Amino acid sequence: MSTAFRYTRTVAFAETDMAGIVHFSNYFRFMEEAEHAFLQKLGHSVHAEGPDGLVCFPRVEAGCSYLGPLRFEQQFSVGVLVTEVRPKSVSYRMPIEDADGTPVAEGKITAVCATRDQPDSKLRAIPIPEPLARAFAEALTAAE
Amino acid sequence: MSTAFRYTRTVAFAETDMAGIVHFSNYFRFMEEAEHAFLQKLGHSVHAEGPDGLVCFPRVEAGCSYLGPLRFEQQFSVGVLVTEVRPKSVSYRMPIEDADGTPVAEGKITAVCATRDQPDSKLRAIPIPEPLARAFAEALTAAE
Amino acid sequence: MSTAFRYTRTVAFAETDMAGIVHFSNYFRFMEEAEHAFLQKLGHSVHAEGPDGLVCFPRVEAGCSYLGPLRFEQQFSVGVLVTEVRPKSVSYRMPIEDADGTPVAEGKITAVCATRDQPDSKLRAIPIPEPLARAFAEALTAAE
Amino acid sequence: MSTAFRYTRTVAFAETDMAGIVHFSNYFRFMEEAEHAFLQKLGHSVHAEGPDGLVCFPRVEAGCSYLGPLRFEQQFSVGVLVTEVRPKSVSYRMPIEDADGTPVAEGKITAVCATRDQPDSKLRAIPIPEPLARAFAEALTAAE
Repeated sequence: MSTAFRYTRTVAFAETDMAGIVHFSNYFRFMEEAEHAFLQKLGHSVHAEGPDGLVCFPRVEAGCSYLGPLRFEQQFSVGVLVTEVRPKSVSYRMPIEDADGTPVAEGKITAVCATRDQPDSKLRAIPIPEPLARAFAEALTAAE
Repeated sequence: MSTAFRYTRTVAFAETDMAGIVHFSNYFRFMEEAEHAFLQKLGHSVHAEGPDGLVCFPRVEAGCSYLGPLRFEQQFSVGVLVTEVRPKSVSYRMPIEDADGTPVAEGKITAVCATRDQPDSKLRAIPIPEPLARAFAEALTAAE
Repeated sequence: MSTAFRYTRTVAFAETDMAGIVHFSNYFRFMEEAEHAFLQKLGHSVHAEGPDGLVCFPRVEAGCSYLGPLRFEQQFSVGVLVTEVRPKSVSYRMPIEDADGTPVAEGKITAVCATRDQPDSKLRAIPIPEPLARAFAEALTAAE
Repeated sequence: MSTAFRYTRTVAFAETDMAGIVHFSNYFRFMEEAEHAFLQKLGHSVHAEGPDGLVCFPRVEAGCSYLGPLRFEQQFSVGVLVTEVRPKSVSYRMPIEDADGTPVAEGKITAVCATRDQPDSKLRAIPIPEPLARAFAEALTAAE
């Protein structure tokens, strides 16, 4: 997993719950932040207005297995591995580790590439634009 | 305060933090929900597309004094009292009480009435549309 | 699915994101609220101090398939169906529908029954206490 | 204000709302993160178990004036200025600026220093422990 992109940050107080640990829903926000940082490294955004209008990545599937707790002030990292690229969608595996490299969770997200014709109209799936599609394909190869 | 509009609900688990109580930032979400319910009673929304375009109420000021904690599963209510109406803004006082009527917080919000000319353009302040302005004025009188 | 427990409420403004729809992480909070309401109907809590100490239900697995968007002020319901009961864990399927009964998402959660020996010690799995285990078993039969 | 501590980060997607800007409640989380980073620089935490038990800083007052919007991916900074130190409480002024130094909000928080005698007992105010009280006093002088 040495080639994976990793996003690192620290647990904020507001992300904990009364059980004294990070609320399970917040792992999905961590994953989205990591995905966003990964896309930024590829020169893209999760929600960007480009020359051909909005390109965004709504989720069709998200999941997480919880292996151990994360606590306030603890540093953690989210790995981003591309596991599948289709013409209009991309799937990620996102292993979450604490500062010692101990796995604390294993997330996954499948996102569809989408746009809308008018600012108020519905999103519709479109082919992932180049050069992002090629960058995903390269990241997929690296992860295998 | 018997004439005030009151919004009531119960604390969710995700709204607590590791101190075992509701995180202080969530009181502002409670207040917005109460404001929203209040506007709905007046036949309006905090963010509505009308015949003349979007009418929304971005905040210019928000504050809260914390008098005691709120805990998981506890029922609470947020009162909504109009304290000032200007042509383009409205101010609320929002006393928060537990199920026994004991004050737990005292919030306040000032919101500006705004619209935008295009879906992507900036918000600009506009006079509060009738009949909402009149409803605010009546609520102000009732609160005094 | 007529026998399933259903939890109903309305989307709050703060639950939307700049795409104009409910942020995907919030569906997990909706599911937890529904699970909580379901447990309350069975006379239990997701996080309760009982005569034998704390009994809580940390998640080991959570997932969601997104079928369509939810928007501000939209009413939705979360069904709670018990799909598996083990001595120390319970699994739910949680279909989310809009006010017209159109499916908008399909969630699932597996939670472990846990306690801790001291207020500051780690959580450890314990058998689901009676009569909750029996209530889960009955709900499982009803869902099949 | 050149001597003020500043905390800098970027707006996450989940922090926006359907108006396309950061939800007003999230500014209070930004302030808490900044306060936390400031306390860390002083060698303390907002919620720490020390040799004499828990020392934490529940809020008694929080407020924010909103001067302009913050958007997704925008970088911003929160300044932390100590404006008053009392034996058992501390007050901060927290100017929030965008990457160009343009003010976007002006926050304030007053927090009480507190502990609890047992893990489950209520919080009670205590004198701010040394050397934190001295560090606050020095930061107050620097801010004046």
